[in-house]
Amino acid sequence: MDAPEIHILSVGTALPGPPVDNATLARQLGTHQQFEQWVDTFIGTRTRHLSVDLETGEVNHSLADLGTTAGGRALAAAGLEASDIDVIVMGTATPDALMPATVNLIADRLGIDGIPTYQLQSGCAGAVQALDVGREMLLTGRHTTALVIGGDVCAKHLDIDMDVSSMAPAQLVNVVLFGDGAGAAVLSTRPTPGSVTIKAVLNRLTGLGRAPGQVIEWFGLADRASDRPAGMEDYKAIEESVPVMAGEILKELLDTLGWQQADLDFLLPPQLSGRMTKRIVERLAVADAQEVSCVQDTGNNGNALVFFQLERALERMGPGDRAIAVAVESSKWIKAGFALEKV
Amino acid sequence: MDAPEIHILSVGTALPGPPVDNATLARQLGTHQQFEQWVDTFIGTRTRHLSVDLETGEVNHSLADLGTTAGGRALAAAGLEASDIDVIVMGTATPDALMPATVNLIADRLGIDGIPTYQLQSGCAGAVQALDVGREMLLTGRHTTALVIGGDVCAKHLDIDMDVSSMAPAQLVNVVLFGDGAGAAVLSTRPTPGSVTIKAVLNRLTGLGRAPGQVIEWFGLADRASDRPAGMEDYKAIEESVPVMAGEILKELLDTLGWQQADLDFLLPPQLSGRMTKRIVERLAVADAQEVSCVQDTGNNGNALVFFQLERALERMGPGDRAIAVAVESSKWIKAGFALEKV
Repeated sequence: MDAPEIHILSVGTALPGPPVDNATLARQLGTHQQFEQWVDTFIGTRTRHLSVDLETGEVNHSLADLGTTAGGRALAAAGLEASDIDVIVMGTATPDALMPATVNLIADRLGIDGIPTYQLQSGCAGAVQALDVGREMLLTGRHTTALVIGGDVCAKHLDIDMDVSSMAPAQLVNVVLFGDGAGAAVLSTRPTPGSVTIKAVLNRLTGLGRAPGQVIEWFGLADRASDRPAGMEDYKAIEESVPVMAGEILKELLDTLGWQQADLDFLLPPQLSGRMTKRIVERLAVADAQEVSCVQDTGNNGNALVFFQLERALERMGPGDRAIAVAVESSKWIKAGFALEKV
Repeated sequence: MDAPEIHILSVGTALPGPPVDNATLARQLGTHQQFEQWVDTFIGTRTRHLSVDLETGEVNHSLADLGTTAGGRALAAAGLEASDIDVIVMGTATPDALMPATVNLIADRLGIDGIPTYQLQSGCAGAVQALDVGREMLLTGRHTTALVIGGDVCAKHLDIDMDVSSMAPAQLVNVVLFGDGAGAAVLSTRPTPGSVTIKAVLNRLTGLGRAPGQVIEWFGLADRASDRPAGMEDYKAIEESVPVMAGEILKELLDTLGWQQADLDFLLPPQLSGRMTKRIVERLAVADAQEVSCVQDTGNNGNALVFFQLERALERMGPGDRAIAVAVESSKWIKAGFALEKV
C-alpha cells in the first residue's frame, strides 16, 4: 500500500494595518537618523506591520483577530465552509493569553466547533510543527480536512516609550526585526486542481547541551515588578548556526526524497531578517531555484512567516514544480522544513 | 487490517516539596482561622504542593525541573533510555518562558535530541491533548515510542504578599485551588507486561458562542504596569457546565467502544477541586467503578493531574480491567477523555 499523501489546498494571510518603514519607525521612536541607515544596511528589513499604534501605544489587533482573518481567507480560497474543517492546529510564540488557547477563540469566530484543536507553543519552527501535526492527524485517517494557523503579535513586549537612543545594537535589533501577522493553510487528504502535495516534513530538535539562542519571557502577577529582562538573543550564535543548520535541513530533505538540487524550482529560506536571509540563500547556493521570501516587507512575524512564503509560492508553482521550505528555530535550536510538489 | 493500538508502558510524576495543608496556607498568608474551615468545606482540597516558598517568596522549582523529574521517572519505570524516545509531546498552561518551549529544555536535561518535540498550550484538557497527539504520532508508523509530559507551575501568578483577608470568595478560590506538579507517560506501539491499551481518545472543542469560563493572562514588557487582572474564573458557569459535560464525555466514550457502565472498573473523573470532583462522581453514578482521584492531595496542578490519576490507576488495574478518564477544560469549554484496557 502506498502511503497516503496530504495536500495544501489554499493559504490565507493577515497583516495589521499598513507597512511601517524604517524612517517612520525611527521618527516615532524619537531616534537619530543614522538608525534608519543602520537598519537598511545591517538588518535589511524595509518594512514591518505592527499591532500597536506607535503614536498612542494602543493595541489595535490581537492574535485572535489576525488568525481569524487569515483562517477565514484560507477557507474562502479553498471554497470550504467552517463545517468542513475536522481539526485545527495553530503555532504561536505569543498567544493572546495563557488560557484560553487563542486557537479556540479563532475557532469560535470562524464558527468552527465540535472538533479537536491544538495550539503549539513555538517560534520560528512553529509553522512547520503545526503543518506537521495537522498532516499527521490526517495521515491516520481520523480526519479529512485540517486548518493550520500560525501567527505572532509582539505588542505586549513592544514598549513605545523605550529609550531607543541609548540602546546597544544587540537590543536595537529586536525593535526593528519583528512584525506582527498571521497565516493559515487548509490541508486535505484529497488533492484539488491547484493544490500542492506535502512530500516530506522535517522537525528535529538539535539542542543537546547548547545554550538557547533566543529567550522570550512572560511576566505574571507575582513577578511583573522584577527587573528581569523580557528576552535575550545571542545574535552571534544565531549568525553562526542558522546558515549551517539551514544547509543541513536542505540536504536532509533532498536526500530523503532522492531529489537533486537541480530538481528544485523554489526555495523558501529562513526569514530571520532581510540580511540574514540573503546570506543564507547565498550559502545554500541552489542556483536554479527561485527564492520566495517575505521578511523584507513583513518583518519577522514568527509563526506567520512560512504562510506568507507559501502564499507567494503557491501563486507561482506550476505543474511538476518542486519547492523546499527551510526554517530554523534558534530558541533551543530546532531544524525544520518541508518539501512540496505540484501535481 | 486491524487498526494498530497504542499502549501506555509507564507513568512518572513529580511534586515540588512537601504538602502544604490549609492551616499552613492560612497561617502563611496571614488570614483568619475561618479561612481554613471555609476551604475544607467549600473547596475540599486538603493539601497542595507549591513551587514557591511561602515564607520567602523564592521560586524553588521550575516547570522544566518538575517535567524533567517526571519524565526521567517514566523512562526508568519503562526500562528505557533517552535514546529510545522518538518524539516528545508536552501540555502546559504555564510554560517557564514563551521561548524556548519548556519541552526542549526538558529534552536537553534528559539527554534526548534529534527528534520532534511539541508543546501544547492547554489547560485541564491538556494532558489528554498531549496523549492524543503522542498517540497519533505513533499511529502513523513514523515513530515507535513517545514521551508525553504534562505539568503546571503557578509560581509567577502566586503573589504571597497579597491581601487575602480582603478578598472575595471568588478570588480566594484561586489561592487555595491550585498546586504545582508534572507528570509523564511513555507510549509505545508495542505492549509490555503491565501496559494498558488506549482504546479511544476524545478531544472536542464545544465553545461556540460561549464566553470563556476561565482566563489566565500573561504580561509583557509593555503592559506589565497595567492594572489588568491576571485572570478570571466564572465559577458559576463552571459549576453548572462541568458536571453536565463530564456526563456527556463518559457517555460518548462508552458509546464509541460499545461499553456499558457496568463494564467500567475505574473512573478517573475531572479534578477541579475536591468538592467539585465529589459532586461530579455522584452525578456520573458509575456505581461499580472505583474512583481514582488525586486533587484532594495534589491540588489542581492542571496539565499534571491526569498523570497522577494514571499513576494510581495503573497500580490498581488488573488483566481485563477497563478505565475511563474524563477531563473538562473550562477556558473555552473543551470535552476530553480517554478509555484504557489492560490486556
